[in-house]
Amino acid sequence: MAYPPSPFAPDHFPTLPPVPGVRLSACEAGVRYSGRLDLMLAEFAPNTVVGGVMTKSTTAGAPVDWNRTALKNGSARALVVNSGNANVFTGQRGRDAVEKTANAVSEAINCDQSDVFVCSTGTIGEYLLEDRITAKISDLTSTLADAAWEQAATAIMTTDTYPKGAVRTAEIDGTTVTLVGIAKGSGMIAPDMATMLSYVMTDAALSPEVAQNVITKGANKSFNAITIDSDTSTSDTLLLFATGQADHAPVTEIGEQRIHAFEAALDDLLIDLAHQVVKDGEGAQKFVEIQVTGAESDDAARRMGLAIGNSPLVKTAIAGADANWGRIVMAIGKAGEKADRDKLAIAIGGFQITKDGEPIPGYDESPVTEHMQGRDIELEIDVGIGNGQATVWTCDLTHGYIDINADYRT
Amino acid sequence: MAYPPSPFAPDHFPTLPPVPGVRLSACEAGVRYSGRLDLMLAEFAPNTVVGGVMTKSTTAGAPVDWNRTALKNGSARALVVNSGNANVFTGQRGRDAVEKTANAVSEAINCDQSDVFVCSTGTIGEYLLEDRITAKISDLTSTLADAAWEQAATAIMTTDTYPKGAVRTAEIDGTTVTLVGIAKGSGMIAPDMATMLSYVMTDAALSPEVAQNVITKGANKSFNAITIDSDTSTSDTLLLFATGQADHAPVTEIGEQRIHAFEAALDDLLIDLAHQVVKDGEGAQKFVEIQVTGAESDDAARRMGLAIGNSPLVKTAIAGADANWGRIVMAIGKAGEKADRDKLAIAIGGFQITKDGEPIPGYDESPVTEHMQGRDIELEIDVGIGNGQATVWTCDLTHGYIDINADYRT
Repeated sequence: MAYPPSPFAPDHFPTLPPVPGVRLSACEAGVRYSGRLDLMLAEFAPNTVVGGVMTKSTTAGAPVDWNRTALKNGSARALVVNSGNANVFTGQRGRDAVEKTANAVSEAINCDQSDVFVCSTGTIGEYLLEDRITAKISDLTSTLADAAWEQAATAIMTTDTYPKGAVRTAEIDGTTVTLVGIAKGSGMIAPDMATMLSYVMTDAALSPEVAQNVITKGANKSFNAITIDSDTSTSDTLLLFATGQADHAPVTEIGEQRIHAFEAALDDLLIDLAHQVVKDGEGAQKFVEIQVTGAESDDAARRMGLAIGNSPLVKTAIAGADANWGRIVMAIGKAGEKADRDKLAIAIGGFQITKDGEPIPGYDESPVTEHMQGRDIELEIDVGIGNGQATVWTCDLTHGYIDINADYRT
Repeated sequence: MAYPPSPFAPDHFPTLPPVPGVRLSACEAGVRYSGRLDLMLAEFAPNTVVGGVMTKSTTAGAPVDWNRTALKNGSARALVVNSGNANVFTGQRGRDAVEKTANAVSEAINCDQSDVFVCSTGTIGEYLLEDRITAKISDLTSTLADAAWEQAATAIMTTDTYPKGAVRTAEIDGTTVTLVGIAKGSGMIAPDMATMLSYVMTDAALSPEVAQNVITKGANKSFNAITIDSDTSTSDTLLLFATGQADHAPVTEIGEQRIHAFEAALDDLLIDLAHQVVKDGEGAQKFVEIQVTGAESDDAARRMGLAIGNSPLVKTAIAGADANWGRIVMAIGKAGEKADRDKLAIAIGGFQITKDGEPIPGYDESPVTEHMQGRDIELEIDVGIGNGQATVWTCDLTHGYIDINADYRT
C-alpha cells in the first residue's frame, strides 16, 4: 500500500491549536492495516451540536445510515472512525457492527448511543471485525488529548499519501472562535459528496439548525466542487461539531449577520481541505482549477466545470502537458447544459486561445505549453450566454491512478 | 501514431460483398497523416435514401451541422469522409470547408450539393485544409469500385488499430438484401452517440422515414449502449444508406411486418460494429459485457450499466483482474436510479457473489479471479426492484489509454 507521495505533499503537518471542548486520540487497531494508526476517537463536551452532509449514493454503507439518524438530534458527544474497511454492503452484520461500536463508546464516555457518530472508510463488501475496534475503546478514552490532530488525520487515511488538516479563526460578537478541520481522500471522489471523510470542530456556539445550514452551504462551494475520478463513494461524510465553549451568545438564526465572518472562515477552511484532497488524488501530478463564467446559471457553470474535470481525455491531456483545448470544447459540448459553440472563449494559464467559437488569429501555443508543464493548471471558460459562474478543482489522470487502482485490494 | 494493436484485432478484414448501388474509393490526401489512406468517397445510385443519428454535443462540428440539414431531404448520392482533422470549432472557415468539399463532390458526380454527406474525424480546433480534399475528388471518382470496403474502413481510422466492417443479409418479401457496415472508434466514445463514425449501406428499398426509424432504434441497442471513456465526441455520426436496388416493393410504413427480419439483421450488424469499436477502445485489453436486470425500467437499467461501464474504479479493477465487486456496488449507488442496497445481487463470470445486499456465505473468490484474468469479462447485476433490463459494453482502463491520450496530438 505504499505509493509515491504526492508532489504536493507538505513538508510537515500544520500546527493546529486545540479547540475547547474537543479531545482526540488514535491507535493501531489492526482493522485491516498493520503497523499504522487506523482508529481515531474524538470526544466532545456536553451540549456540542452537529450538522453534516453525506453521500447521495443509494448503496451507502451502514455507518452512513447510522449517522443520518443520529444527525436528527443535532447533538454529539463522540466520533469514532476506522480506516481499512468501509463497512458497506455488509447487511445486518454491518448494522450490528455500527451499533456495537457506538455502544462501546457511549458506555466508555457515559453518553447516549445516539450522540456517537461512527464512520468507516476502506474496502467495500467485507465484514468489519468490530471487536478489533471495541477492544481499543478504553485505550482511546484513556489517551484523549487536546490537539492530537495529526494522529487523528493519519488514522483516517486510506490511499492518501499525507494527512490533511487546516485551521481558521473568526470573530463572533468580538469573541475569537477557532475552526480546525481534518480530511481524507483520495479516490472515489466526486460530488455528491466529494470527499470521503472530513470533520470540522469549532468552539463556536451554534444551534443545530445553524450548524446544518452553514455546513451544507460550505460543502457546495468546496467538497461538492472537486472531482478526482467521477466516482461517488458509499461513505462520504462531512460533519461540523460545534462545542459552544466560546464566550458568545449562541447563534440560533440562520443567516444572522453575526455569523457571516464565521461562515467565510468555514468556507475558506473547507476549500483548503478540499484542495488538499485533490492534490493527494490518486496518482495526481497536477492541480487544476477550472473557472467557468457566462453560463446560464451557477449550477450550469458547476456542471460544465465538472464535465471538464471528469473528462478522461481532458485529464490525460493535462497529464501529458498537451494544450489540447479541443477536448475542453468537447467536454463543454457533452455537459448537457445550454451552450453556443460560436460564443465560447477559452483561456489556459491566462492566455486566451479561442474567442467567438474559433482560435484567435495568430494564436501562439508555446506559452500555453509552458504553463501546462507546471504543477498548477488554470483553465478559464467563458460560455458567453449568461451570468452563471463556478469554480471546480480536479487533478490530472496519470499512470499512477491505474497503478493504485488496478491492484487496490492486494 | 503507431500504438500496439488491440489484442482483439482480427487476423484480417472480413470479406464483404458489394452492395448494389454503392461504389467506394479511398486515397492518401495528406490531411494530417502521411503515408496512409485518410480520405474516402462513397457514391450511391440515384434514389438512395438515408437516415441517421448524430452527436447530441452542443459543440458539434461543422460537418455535423451540414449533415443534419442534408438529412432533412432523406436523399443521398455521396458520402465523403476524411480522418486526421475533425473540422470542429473552426467557425466560418470550417463551414466554408464543408461547403467547398460538398460542392466539389456534387460537381464531380453531377448531383445536388444537399445530397452529399460530409464527415471529418480527428483533432478538434484546427482549420481543415479542404483543398487537400478537393484536389483528390477526381482521383476518388475515377477509382470507384464495387467492394472497396477495407480501403474505406481504413481511411476513416484515427487511433483505431484495425479497420472495422461487418455484413448481414435479410429477406424482404422473399428477396435477399445485403447490409454492409463500417465503423471507426476509438476514444471519446460514449453515448450519445457512442461511435465517432459508422456507415451502413444496403440495397433494401426503404422510405426515408423507415430508414430513419430503423437506424434510430438500432443505435439505441448498439452504439448508444457502449462506452470507452464517458467522453462524447463532437463528430459522432451514424448513417444508413438504402439504395433501393433490391427487387422488392419499397417499405414505406414504419413497423411493417415485412421489415422485421431486416431490422433484426440491422440491429445485429450494429451491435457487431459497436463491439468492434469497444474491442479497439484506446488501450483496451479486456471486453466487458454488463447485463443489468430488475431495474425500474429499461432506461434505468441502461443508465446503471453505463455508470458501471464509465466508472474509472471499476475499469481499473478489471484491468488489474481484481474481482473488486465493491466498486460495482459503488457505481450502482451513484447512477442516480432507484436501487435498494439490500436487494442487489451481483455475479461475475456466472459466479454469484452477493445476494440480498451482502456477500453469499462461503463466497469463494478464486473462480471469479480466474474469470477476471481472461479477455472477456461478464458482469451481471440484478437490481431486484422491477423488470427493466439492458446490456452495455465497455473495455478496461489501462496504461495504454493514458499513453495514447497524454500525447495524442504529437
